[in-house]
Amino acid sequence: MFRFKVLHKDKKTNARVGEIVTPHGVIRTPAFVPVGTQATVKSLTPEELDTLGVQLFFVNTYHMYLRPGIEVIEKLGGLHKFMGWKGPVITDSGGFQVFSLGAKKSDDGVEFRSHWDGTSHVFTPEKSIEIQKKLGADIILAFDDCTPYPVTHGQARRSLSRTHAWATRSLDAHLSFRPKSRNPEGKTWIPGQARDDKTNYQALYGSIQGSVYEDLRKESAEFIGAMDFDGIAIGGVAVGESKKEMVDVLDWVGPILPDKKPRHLLGVGEIDDIFALVERGIDTFDCVQPTRLARMGKLMGKPAIDITKKQYARDLTPIEGGFSRAYLHHLFRVHELLGYRLATIHNLHFVHRLVDDIRESITKGSFLELKDEWI
Amino acid sequence: MFRFKVLHKDKKTNARVGEIVTPHGVIRTPAFVPVGTQATVKSLTPEELDTLGVQLFFVNTYHMYLRPGIEVIEKLGGLHKFMGWKGPVITDSGGFQVFSLGAKKSDDGVEFRSHWDGTSHVFTPEKSIEIQKKLGADIILAFDDCTPYPVTHGQARRSLSRTHAWATRSLDAHLSFRPKSRNPEGKTWIPGQARDDKTNYQALYGSIQGSVYEDLRKESAEFIGAMDFDGIAIGGVAVGESKKEMVDVLDWVGPILPDKKPRHLLGVGEIDDIFALVERGIDTFDCVQPTRLARMGKLMGKPAIDITKKQYARDLTPIEGGFSRAYLHHLFRVHELLGYRLATIHNLHFVHRLVDDIRESITKGSFLELKDEWI
Repeated sequence: MFRFKVLHKDKKTNARVGEIVTPHGVIRTPAFVPVGTQATVKSLTPEELDTLGVQLFFVNTYHMYLRPGIEVIEKLGGLHKFMGWKGPVITDSGGFQVFSLGAKKSDDGVEFRSHWDGTSHVFTPEKSIEIQKKLGADIILAFDDCTPYPVTHGQARRSLSRTHAWATRSLDAHLSFRPKSRNPEGKTWIPGQARDDKTNYQALYGSIQGSVYEDLRKESAEFIGAMDFDGIAIGGVAVGESKKEMVDVLDWVGPILPDKKPRHLLGVGEIDDIFALVERGIDTFDCVQPTRLARMGKLMGKPAIDITKKQYARDLTPIEGGFSRAYLHHLFRVHELLGYRLATIHNLHFVHRLVDDIRESITKGSFLELKDEWI
Repeated sequence: MFRFKVLHKDKKTNARVGEIVTPHGVIRTPAFVPVGTQATVKSLTPEELDTLGVQLFFVNTYHMYLRPGIEVIEKLGGLHKFMGWKGPVITDSGGFQVFSLGAKKSDDGVEFRSHWDGTSHVFTPEKSIEIQKKLGADIILAFDDCTPYPVTHGQARRSLSRTHAWATRSLDAHLSFRPKSRNPEGKTWIPGQARDDKTNYQALYGSIQGSVYEDLRKESAEFIGAMDFDGIAIGGVAVGESKKEMVDVLDWVGPILPDKKPRHLLGVGEIDDIFALVERGIDTFDCVQPTRLARMGKLMGKPAIDITKKQYARDLTPIEGGFSRAYLHHLFRVHELLGYRLATIHNLHFVHRLVDDIRESITKGSFLELKDEWI
């Protein structure tokens, strides 16, 4: 099962409120998506994530492929069961990670070396889809060719052709995939069901690339938007481009993309970004920023603060969860694990409440007013 | 308020079930006491500790003194409020840590260097009590002279004389201490009330030393046992002695100590130790072992297992909390914080349920049968 419905449209911008229905539950959009790179959102249990309002759990295919390995997760009943997370899960194609490892590309796929042990591996569109089917996320992504930044127009053009060829191969693989494996309880493997299964269907999003070039981004939006994907992922906007360039990309592709498909933005989620991307019709967006900042002691808020600074040593102001800034300052100063955890809870709570407010403001017609308050 | 009552005595051994009433709640004994060295039990929140059955929270005075500093905790309303822990707290005298730093001793006290920045500091019995009054634990310990292991009889004798002199000075400081400080709400500082305050009295335990020498241990038990302490702490049994020597020390001092005072054993808590010390009349005992083992991936149980071993990569057996061994194995293999946390929960759950069972077995008269099952 996969269904997307727009429930409210903002009158002054392209912001929209909707819901994505998946086999593991409903995602109310716009939705922030925390990244659980290695099948865990740093230090938190699935129960805590649920309490914080997390609706969709992002896991990196590349990391799962290397450790614990796809066959392990498959044997254990898929990602949901492995992590103990009952809600929706999204996996990426693995492309972004392998390209950043200085991989050897060809039209067929990518050869790369494990960052753990240097062993050599190959990802192709078919392989990426097969892996993602076995991991069993509710939403999976087409394998794409990620360009570095900056890149010339010529290079970006050649890369985009490959991305589009791989989109076709990813979609073919998705539609023809019939899993042979069975889960440990002997039942038919649920997440890997093919498209005609109404109940357990995994959604496949196509990926838009094109670097910072208007003609390429528009061409990509046309091409991917016209294909039989369940949703659209916009990639390559968080690899070095400025905020201005992200906004340009979204302004170029927004009008071209089909309204009825959900749009995911990969790797973006600072506060001003969130308003800018929601304003341009993005429905879900993943970002490591809130959890990464937390581990550095940076607490999101208005204003954001650096809890490691001396001025918080005696500050009784509570952080999210009720502990004092002074206690959190102490935990960071003496390098205690609880510090990273409390800061992570604080930041995830913050960003989820912000997106809750944004959702409500769109419904009420006051999105731009809320944006003005924040930016 | 401080009160100790023995509720049941085992007929065949010296094991006993009792309760210690403190200003922050009742401790049912025998009780395992996890160590929150730096005002946190590694990675867990006070709420989780409470759920796991933790009754008494052990904090190291030396660590608090250096970071965040006593005046900070005093200003923030004491240790309980600082950590967000509502139950009983015990602090040590700081002696054990400063002696292990190669401190310069005299009859007056100990000069030592901070392990953080090398700055020089002095602890005396009066200073240790003052610090502990300001930290505001429910139970505090007399400052004692900790001997290294092994040590000659002559050295142990001289050290014991000092311990006894310092016990007298600690008790005097305790009885005469009147806090001048007020907490941030402007109320009278509660934990630092003097002995005649029936409501908020902090209990002081005297410390027994004497290394592995029978005559010295017995002399120390006589001396400390006869003083006006609220309880007895037995120190120096976990600094290199064998299990046989711990048992000997407890057999020597047990019959001498007054029955009506609670007995705390410092730094011991492996499974066979727990049965041995409870059998010899110990009421509370602190130990870093369950939390330290957890961070190494060693899960307590029958049998104990090393979750980092390859054989658990596909093992669906649940650990405490419901996650699979396979998931925990993965988290350790990729060095994820959640792994240390789940293992810590597992071990603390294990040791608390074991001590629950021991308590019940004493009440039912089946303590030795339970011991036989385990040892």
